Amino acid sequence: MTHRVVIIGGGFGGLHAAKKLKDPAIAVTLIDRRNFHLFQPLLYQVATGGLSPANIASPLRAILRKQKNVDIVLGEAIDIDCVQKQVVLRDRRISYDSLIVASGAHHDYFGHPQWEPFAPGLKTVEDATEIRRRILSALETAELSTDDDLIARCLTFVVVGGGPTGVELAGALGELTRRTLRDNFRRIDASSAKILLIEGEDRVLPMYSPDLSETAKQSLQRLGVSVLCNARVTEVNAKGVQVQFADATQEIPAKTVLWGAGVRASRLGKVIAESTNAQLDRSGRVIVESDCTISDHREMFVIGDLAAFEDERRNQLPGVAPVAIQQGRYVAGLIRDRLNGKATKPFVYRDHGKMSTIGRAAAVAEIGSWHLTGFVAWVAWLLVHLMQLVGFENRVLVLIQWAGNYFTRNRAARLITQTENAGGND
Amino acid sequence: MTHRVVIIGGGFGGLHAAKKLKDPAIAVTLIDRRNFHLFQPLLYQVATGGLSPANIASPLRAILRKQKNVDIVLGEAIDIDCVQKQVVLRDRRISYDSLIVASGAHHDYFGHPQWEPFAPGLKTVEDATEIRRRILSALETAELSTDDDLIARCLTFVVVGGGPTGVELAGALGELTRRTLRDNFRRIDASSAKILLIEGEDRVLPMYSPDLSETAKQSLQRLGVSVLCNARVTEVNAKGVQVQFADATQEIPAKTVLWGAGVRASRLGKVIAESTNAQLDRSGRVIVESDCTISDHREMFVIGDLAAFEDERRNQLPGVAPVAIQQGRYVAGLIRDRLNGKATKPFVYRDHGKMSTIGRAAAVAEIGSWHLTGFVAWVAWLLVHLMQLVGFENRVLVLIQWAGNYFTRNRAARLITQTENAGGND
Repeated sequence: MTHRVVIIGGGFGGLHAAKKLKDPAIAVTLIDRRNFHLFQPLLYQVATGGLSPANIASPLRAILRKQKNVDIVLGEAIDIDCVQKQVVLRDRRISYDSLIVASGAHHDYFGHPQWEPFAPGLKTVEDATEIRRRILSALETAELSTDDDLIARCLTFVVVGGGPTGVELAGALGELTRRTLRDNFRRIDASSAKILLIEGEDRVLPMYSPDLSETAKQSLQRLGVSVLCNARVTEVNAKGVQVQFADATQEIPAKTVLWGAGVRASRLGKVIAESTNAQLDRSGRVIVESDCTISDHREMFVIGDLAAFEDERRNQLPGVAPVAIQQGRYVAGLIRDRLNGKATKPFVYRDHGKMSTIGRAAAVAEIGSWHLTGFVAWVAWLLVHLMQLVGFENRVLVLIQWAGNYFTRNRAARLITQTENAGGND
Repeated sequence: MTHRVVIIGGGFGGLHAAKKLKDPAIAVTLIDRRNFHLFQPLLYQVATGGLSPANIASPLRAILRKQKNVDIVLGEAIDIDCVQKQVVLRDRRISYDSLIVASGAHHDYFGHPQWEPFAPGLKTVEDATEIRRRILSALETAELSTDDDLIARCLTFVVVGGGPTGVELAGALGELTRRTLRDNFRRIDASSAKILLIEGEDRVLPMYSPDLSETAKQSLQRLGVSVLCNARVTEVNAKGVQVQFADATQEIPAKTVLWGAGVRASRLGKVIAESTNAQLDRSGRVIVESDCTISDHREMFVIGDLAAFEDERRNQLPGVAPVAIQQGRYVAGLIRDRLNGKATKPFVYRDHGKMSTIGRAAAVAEIGSWHLTGFVAWVAWLLVHLMQLVGFENRVLVLIQWAGNYFTRNRAARLITQTENAGGND
């Protein structure tokens, strides 16, 4: 009898699990709300006009076209019925023998959901085009205005969170205002734009070694980014942000505030916790066993950003693509081993290092005890990201746009689309 | 004293006028609601997932970066004050010595605006991504459904209008369903999708010679498109369309109806007619003099799709890009000649022929008495369109995607974005 595997989420974890489950004895159903797999690590390039959404997205049906045992369902899993072993969608139920939940995470406002309209995060294609719209519209408003206060507010960009997303966004904003937009405006000087990166800890990229954090900070400063550490955002509204330092509070008027700080696990974590004995961690992630299962539901796997996995040294694995990919492949292998009556082993994460880019031709990389910086790290970052992109065509398209960006500082995709008052078109 | 030229609209006419007005004695203000110039002839490729919006759009500020005498204003011209010689925007007035109105046209529903929600037209980037969403969502709904009627409705695509837009859309739909989506679905057969092209006259592409219309029809049929001529759409609603033939009426149930039929001039035509002695034609276009001016306002020029221009043989010039481009350049030259006290000549359109593509490797072209078809016409079409695209990078990106489309039938940009219930992302 065919073993039915249902996978919720077509991100890194879910997609790699599906690909690894290529086996005629297994029927895979992949459920996603979107019809494409998104390469989230490059989303900040879409937000800053360097790439188009389609360059970093691949239709799931195209990727899995030839894998006949995979069925794709476009829809949202709203509940999991652990007793009947069914995933509940709005208008149907899908039965499983094994379930892989890989529905990821979204940004979180530390208990201040009211900040969201003023400080969009960067998780979806729509987030990216909305951020692109806000950045470009702020500059257009400044160009037309004669009100000095408004101009100053429009030319201030605040990025909250000094992790990889915040650093990459702030760096790209530096490139955009300092280089790409040179000569674009007649009244304002885009290169005078203030870009503030706010980080709660005492250095940016706190997950890297201190020397690399320092390098990243210097690279950011060369691009005109002011790095504010030990700073906590206490308010975000239409006027700007309020920041609290150790000994002072500062109001920063800013039209554009971008959120790269908190992350919260998908709502399905709560669903799982309510129907199994699984516990959630502080970010709403499901605490899983060493084989990514839940102790009283060994047929249920939770992987990627939704899972809180503690490795053998009791370190929490970070919410990054390589963890999700490796867990997806591991779980797929485990399911096949179980079916073949083979013994299974716990999941072991192989850390191949981490890298972040800071604008053009600058990056930091930490690979074991190797610390790379500058152009070398940037080339390494570029190659690794190109290789990881899905689809040969996308790789070529991205490479050409990066070459254009490198040599001419162009960011051709800087379109303001889906404006509030678009629609008609006289 | 500097001569102030205000241009309304950054489409083909307005942009080419601005570029030709490179003269330090002239101060140009280009007003557009959008921050980019759009290459509308390729919009159908975005609507069918072959290209990304940014591939056929270029930021106006980037194009005119080095032309220091051009000021770009992002905004909407809502009125023209012919007495004070000012263009009225929502929050400001801009004075002109010469005015070029090039605000184009939008689609029109022959007096049935209530059809619009059921049959989107194709004029803006948002139109294209919305059509892309509808096409792909219809297939996804069919794949999930067990209701035969609904499946049939989802697999029926009606394109209203057999002009270039309709023919190109229907051809691309044929490619998409017959080739690109092969193996993508597990339950439905995308290649069984019905594609109906409805044309009121007795042949598609009625502005071409009858032999080319016949070739186009055969090419469409090879792609699975049913061509219905002498057919008039009398109703469009959520269920589908009602079509009236010479001797019968037919209801066609269809979830996706696309509008490529009527065109109506921008609202500014009416504004001009109300404040000058200019007359409008049946499509709301401003009837202009032989130098593109209005007889009692020689400082006011109307060009492109907004203008009704009758050539020396009393033929109406068609609403196509080459007319707009040539009028834009002509008017810019005329303004400079006037300033230099030179005599001016009437506008003469140089017709370099026309071409339309019908799916992969097929096209028709009519260049004077030359009639090209098939692969040769397609290559000619491809080269002409690549050359006309603004920006070297865009040309390379489009060429690569067309090569990918040609060799692998891929259309990688088939993303469903901005869905009604997107936004959150659990």
